[in-house]
Parts: sequence; C-alpha cells; structure tokens
Amino acid sequence: MKYEHIQQEAFEANMQLPKLELVLFTFGNVSAADRSLGVFAIKPSGVAYNDLSPAKMVIVDFEGKTVEGNLRPSSDTLTHAVLYKQWENVGGIAHTHSTYATAWAQSQREIPIYGTTHADYCTVDIPCAAPMEDEKIKGNYEYETGFQIIRCFENKKIDPAEVEMMLVGNHAPFTWGKNAAKAVHNSAVLEYIAKMAFITEGINPAAQRMKEALIKKHFERKHGPDSYYGQ
Amino acid sequence: MKYEHIQQEAFEANMQLPKLELVLFTFGNVSAADRSLGVFAIKPSGVAYNDLSPAKMVIVDFEGKTVEGNLRPSSDTLTHAVLYKQWENVGGIAHTHSTYATAWAQSQREIPIYGTTHADYCTVDIPCAAPMEDEKIKGNYEYETGFQIIRCFENKKIDPAEVEMMLVGNHAPFTWGKNAAKAVHNSAVLEYIAKMAFITEGINPAAQRMKEALIKKHFERKHGPDSYYGQ
Amino acid sequence: MKYEHIQQEAFEANMQLPKLELVLFTFGNVSAADRSLGVFAIKPSGVAYNDLSPAKMVIVDFEGKTVEGNLRPSSDTLTHAVLYKQWENVGGIAHTHSTYATAWAQSQREIPIYGTTHADYCTVDIPCAAPMEDEKIKGNYEYETGFQIIRCFENKKIDPAEVEMMLVGNHAPFTWGKNAAKAVHNSAVLEYIAKMAFITEGINPAAQRMKEALIKKHFERKHGPDSYYGQ
Amino acid sequence: MKYEHIQQEAFEANMQLPKLELVLFTFGNVSAADRSLGVFAIKPSGVAYNDLSPAKMVIVDFEGKTVEGNLRPSSDTLTHAVLYKQWENVGGIAHTHSTYATAWAQSQREIPIYGTTHADYCTVDIPCAAPMEDEKIKGNYEYETGFQIIRCFENKKIDPAEVEMMLVGNHAPFTWGKNAAKAVHNSAVLEYIAKMAFITEGINPAAQRMKEALIKKHFERKHGPDSYYGQ
Repeated sequence: MKYEHIQQEAFEANMQLPKLELVLFTFGNVSAADRSLGVFAIKPSGVAYNDLSPAKMVIVDFEGKTVEGNLRPSSDTLTHAVLYKQWENVGGIAHTHSTYATAWAQSQREIPIYGTTHADYCTVDIPCAAPMEDEKIKGNYEYETGFQIIRCFENKKIDPAEVEMMLVGNHAPFTWGKNAAKAVHNSAVLEYIAKMAFITEGINPAAQRMKEALIKKHFERKHGPDSYYGQ
Repeated sequence: MKYEHIQQEAFEANMQLPKLELVLFTFGNVSAADRSLGVFAIKPSGVAYNDLSPAKMVIVDFEGKTVEGNLRPSSDTLTHAVLYKQWENVGGIAHTHSTYATAWAQSQREIPIYGTTHADYCTVDIPCAAPMEDEKIKGNYEYETGFQIIRCFENKKIDPAEVEMMLVGNHAPFTWGKNAAKAVHNSAVLEYIAKMAFITEGINPAAQRMKEALIKKHFERKHGPDSYYGQ
Repeated sequence: MKYEHIQQEAFEANMQLPKLELVLFTFGNVSAADRSLGVFAIKPSGVAYNDLSPAKMVIVDFEGKTVEGNLRPSSDTLTHAVLYKQWENVGGIAHTHSTYATAWAQSQREIPIYGTTHADYCTVDIPCAAPMEDEKIKGNYEYETGFQIIRCFENKKIDPAEVEMMLVGNHAPFTWGKNAAKAVHNSAVLEYIAKMAFITEGINPAAQRMKEALIKKHFERKHGPDSYYGQ
Repeated sequence: MKYEHIQQEAFEANMQLPKLELVLFTFGNVSAADRSLGVFAIKPSGVAYNDLSPAKMVIVDFEGKTVEGNLRPSSDTLTHAVLYKQWENVGGIAHTHSTYATAWAQSQREIPIYGTTHADYCTVDIPCAAPMEDEKIKGNYEYETGFQIIRCFENKKIDPAEVEMMLVGNHAPFTWGKNAAKAVHNSAVLEYIAKMAFITEGINPAAQRMKEALIKKHFERKHGPDSYYGQ
C-alpha cells in the first residue's frame, strides 16, 4: 500500500503520452519517484497504454532493482534509476519517441533556440548527447545511457534543474521535472519546439538564434525570483 | 455584473483556441474590449483552458491596471492594453504560439502573399516586426511589445483596420478584429496561410507573389463597398 | 419541392468537406446538378457548415441565375455554372482551399505523376491553369475562371471525363465527377496526392515521373472496359 | 463455418487501418492466413471500411483462387497469394498507401536506418524494390508484384522473417508478420519511421546511418534469445 501514491502518479502521467500524441503503441515510458522511500514507479515493459492500471506500475529502487510488482519494468528502467540517483532534485522522468524531437536526435543536432516558446523553458539550445562508445553499447547499455546523459550536461556545464529536456543522439528525447506530470509536460513542449525549429529552418535556412536579452527576459518571466507568469 | 458580457465573450473566444488547435497548454490568450467602459476582459495567467470560466476573466483598463478579478491577468496584458489604447477600432485581440505562424516569426520573414486565401484577408505580405532593442527588452517589455507592433505598422504604412494580423519577430503572432471572435478567426486564418506559404516554397523555391490585379479582386470580393461574399 | 433531391445531395456533399478536413471555416463549396431540369444546387455564400441544411442550398441555372432560394449562392457560383454548361457529363463540382493542393496551385506547378495512387485516378500530371489576364480579372472574374479551367484542358488536350481534378494557379483546386459525392471524393484524393508529391520531392529532389506502362496499367485497373477494381 | 476465425482476424485487422490513419477511403487491404487449411481471408475490393463485416471477407487459396465469398477479393489478392506461397512463415499481410511510406516508394529510395526506433524492428535500411519490366506490367501484374517483392529480398539477401516491411517502387508499402494484427502493427511502424526519416534529412541533409553496434543492440533487445523487451 505504501507505493500507491507514486503508482497513481506514474499511471496518470503515462496515460498523458497517447493523449498528447507523443507515442505510437508502447514507444514511451514515464516514472514517478518518492525520494523519502528511495524508489520510483515505472511503466511495465511492452504493455499497451489501454491495458495499464496504477497497480501494474512496477516499483524499482535507485540501483534499478525491482522492489515490488509482478511485471517486468520498462526496458529503459536503468536509465531512469541512474538519473534519479545522480540528480537529486528530479521527481519524475519521461521518455518518448515523439516524431520531431526524435528526428532531431536522429540528425544528431542540438535544437537552436529560435524563439520565445523555447526561451520560456530554457536559455540554451536543447542539448544532444553524442552516441556512446561501442564497448559501452555492448555492456550495460541502459545503465550507460544514464551516464551518457549526465556527462552531456557536465561537459556543457548545464544544470539539469534549469534545462529539463535533452536528446540522446540516434535515439530519442528524455525529459524530467519535479514530478511525473511536469516531465510529461516537458516532453510535449520539447516536441512542439522541435517541430517549430524544423519549420523555421525550412522557411529560412539562415535563421539566427534569438538574441541574449530576449532569451533572458522570457526565461525570467517564468522562472526565478522575479517571475510574473502564472498565479 | 457590468462586465459579464465581455467576460463571456473573452471566455468563449479563449475556448476556441484549443478547439482550433492553435495552442499547446496555456500558450495563448484572447481579450474582448468594451470601449464605452474603457476596459477589456482577458484570460488569467497560467490557467489551463479546461479550468477557465467567464468569471475568471480579469477586467483591465487601457492603461493595463486590473479593475476587477482575483486572478493575475495574462502576462501579455500590457501589450493588449497598448493596442486597445492606440488603435481605436479594435474590439478583440488574440495572441497564440500556433506552429507555422510562430515558425515564420522565428525565421524573421514576412509571409509573402502567394494566393487568394491570403488575399481574401489582406493585400500585403503579413508583416513581421524586427526584435526590439535590448534596452526596451530589459525595461517594460510587454508594454514595449505593443509599441513594437504599432511602429511596425506605421513604418510600413499599413492600416490595422485592413491588416488584422502580424508576427512579432522571434516571438509569435498577434491578431485582432472588431471583437474577440473575429480576432481568433484571424489567428486560425493566419496559421492556415503560414502553413500553405511554407509548403509553397518547398514545392517551388522561386514561387512568385501573386499579381496585383488578382490581389485587389479577391480582397474587394470580401471587403469594401462592392463586396459580394457572404450574406 | 422538385429540387429537393439535388439540395439533399449538395448538402451531404458539402458536409463531407469539414469531415475530410478539406476546409477551414467556409473555404469551400460543392454543387450538385440535375441536367434534365437544367439547374444545380450550391452552398450559400459565407454560411458556416454547422449552420447548413438541405433547404438552404440555392438553386441556380447554367447561366448562373438564381432560380430558387433566399440566400445568396456561393461567390464561386458562376465558375460552377460555366463548367456545367460547357462540360455536359459533369454532375457535381467541388472547390476547396485544401492545404497541399492549394500550395501546389500557389507554386504554379503541375503535380507530377509519381506513383500508382495518382495513376489510379488519371494518367497525366494534375494540370495547373496559369493566372488569367488582368482585364479578365477586372471583368466578370468568376465567369472567366470557368473558361480559364476549360481553356487549360483544351490547350493540354485533356478530356475532363478522364481527368476530374485541376489547380487554378495562385488560387486553389477544382474537382468534379458524375455527382457531388464523387466530386468531393476527388478533392480528398487530390489533397492526398498533393501531399505525397510534396514529400516525394523532399526525399528525392530528382524524383522521376512513373513510367508509362505502370501508369496505363493502374488506370485501366480502375477504369475502362477491362477494369477489375471494386464490385 | 470453418473460415470464421480468419475472417474475424482479417476483419479486425482491416478495421485498424483507418483507426491508425493509414488509409484514405479504400486504399489498403489486409489478409489473414490459415496455413493448415491453405487459405487466407482478405478484404473485398472497393468496399468502404464502414461497410465491412467478418462475413464479407473473401476466402482465397495460395494460388489466388476464390474458395468462398460472394464479393470480388481485393485487386491485390494475387500479390498476397504469391507471398503466402513462397514465404512459409507469414501469417498475415498488409498493404496500404500510407502517406510517408508511399512518398519514399515514389522517390525510389530505401529508408536509411537513422535511429533506434527503426533498429527495434530491423537491422537494415527498409528495402525498396525497383519498378518491374514493362512486359511483366502488361502481363499478370499483381502476380508479378509478389515476385518483385521476393526477388528484392533474395537480391539483397534479406530474410523476410527478420525484415517484415518493404516498399514497392512508385507504388506503396507491403508489410507482414505472424498474423494480420502484426502485419498492421508493422504498417504503422513503417509509416512512423518513414515520417521521421523524412524530417531527419530535412534537419540534417548529411545525416548518417546509425552505427552498427547500436543497431545490433536495439534489435537484440526486442528479438532473439537474449531479448528483454516486453513481458
């Protein structure tokens, strides 16, 4: 009974993925963590969204070991576990193969910050981690994917509390937030930004990144001590 | 009780945004003015469309001061206020981040008039205001955005009564009309025109603007003393 | 009472336009003819699809004069009238501003025959009529649009019984058929072909027209004495 | 009565095509085989999806002869028959004209393997069969289409048990699987991959195929003795 709250949270967040048109079939998964208990609830592997229920969410600890549940957790579970363990403020993680964000990941390009929609969420280009070394792929792949994401942020000196979305090269996006609902919200925003950036470059192949003053203004409207967006 | 009619009008117009697929989450806002009372009703900031009601619409005067309402008005409120104050025939204003129109704004290009769909609404390319100076961005940003729009029309010698739509560079579209419903109608038309112009240039990178005689004919079919469209 | 059958037919065909996502607001119209009576029923001008009813369809003769109905007929009525008068086998006509077909019209290019989907409907590139001379635009514009379409087919030596779809340059598509339902069917097919041709050229800018033997085979599967498609 | 199970299976699989937005009108067909009986059930030709029922599915043997049913089977029936006869492990076949996959077929290019979504299903570029010789087109066209597909796989030394999807140049995709539901699943995945590959090349015209270690890893996660995806 003690995991019901995160099972419910993870269930509701997973069910948003098809509703927001971010997944085909089972191409995505969301998890919700309880840091006081040191565990997270995650979608079971290969189960269709229509067949999900809160009770089917698998409980896993931050080492990636299943604590409770009869179903096998998502095949990406170890990536979630690594991120929760290393990034202490993350409360929810979402992974999708949403169309435009995945196409940017496949093209191995960062998404340039072209407008205020992007700046409302972060002040830098959306990072894209380079594919990992062959030895790591052959080894503990999903575990290494977690560190691939973390190294990408370390190398670029980006704080995961400020940039809650990124692309794994040749693979697809990962997003996170204070809880599972915010992680899914960020997945939808990333897909929206990714689509608009693709069209922007189609309209103007020489399109320029937005200027710094405007980036700063829009980000601070929604974040930080002087924010004035929302209630 | 005396503001109920514009609260209702603003509520209904805001609810059209998700229905017409012009917004993700809360990325948009519509207002409805009553010029005899010198106020407008506008969407509250950061409130999801599903949670809106007429009573939640905030009443604001043309200086941007809240006259009635417990919620904070949209963060773009000052832009609306400036436009109502400066442009005397405007009865409703809509602002969205709709996909294709926003991509044109991000590309900092005007939308060329390629066909009769565009000419049914205006006779010129859809204007795109250049980003404002850094000092203004750091100052009263939303207030300055209103003047950025107005200066754009003044510089191009365009009458806002004839062209009811435009793009703010690196940001997104603004549209207006005699009332809030017409402002939203124009947002949907602008998105449609923006998408078709993007595809047109993909099909023919050397596509030419439509010739003047045809522009004039189509505009006059729907507007002016000899119009013969509609009942 | 004697026009009820074509009013019903025109009503049902018009209502298919929003259902097939071929129109925004009122950007389209369909008519249904009764050749024994020498008239056609057509959508009234500027009336939203949700407000239509069979009784609102306006009855017009092949000279373009209203025979019955209190509403003004579509502003494109004279184009329909000319086509009915000149092309004796046409029983229904549809006009939309559907996104991709209109973009091809705006680009002033014919749609190359790239695949069997296209060849199932016609054996040639979808024709695109060049914009008309300024004098005609200033004159009886909609009437001239009918002759613009007819001249296009005459110049290219195309039979409107074999090719039931075309583009008016800088404007949008017109389609027709034995009845109004077939005209709308052809509008949906044209939009589908137009979208696929746009993507085809994006994938391979040097894409080639399909070879003649395959064009002939697919067209004859569905048409002519040896057809073997359908029941 | 003895064919009811495959009629039901074929009916349900056909009804998934419009639901998954893979067909316009009747542009697609699915069949379900019973190898112990040596027959398959297939959609009747030219019948709208809304008018289908299990009893309307036509029973055909692997030579392409109708065994039971009053309706004419799909005009592509002989292609299905050839594939069932030559490829012994196929239990269901789907054919659509889905937008992006058909555009790749029209462009006569294979779909490069750009990401893990693709590698989850197969380890090679999606093959595209070159158009067939004119003599064969004029002859038993649909029968020859079956052999066109088979020769394509033989020439490329691809096993149809490992790659369950392909494109017929200038025509459209064919997919298959252990049963009809899996064949339709593969059609949806192919369309998704095709769309993302188109966007990927738009974002980065120099995009590279994914590296072999990552292709192998993702394919083996879902397939083969060490797979660990799903329950």
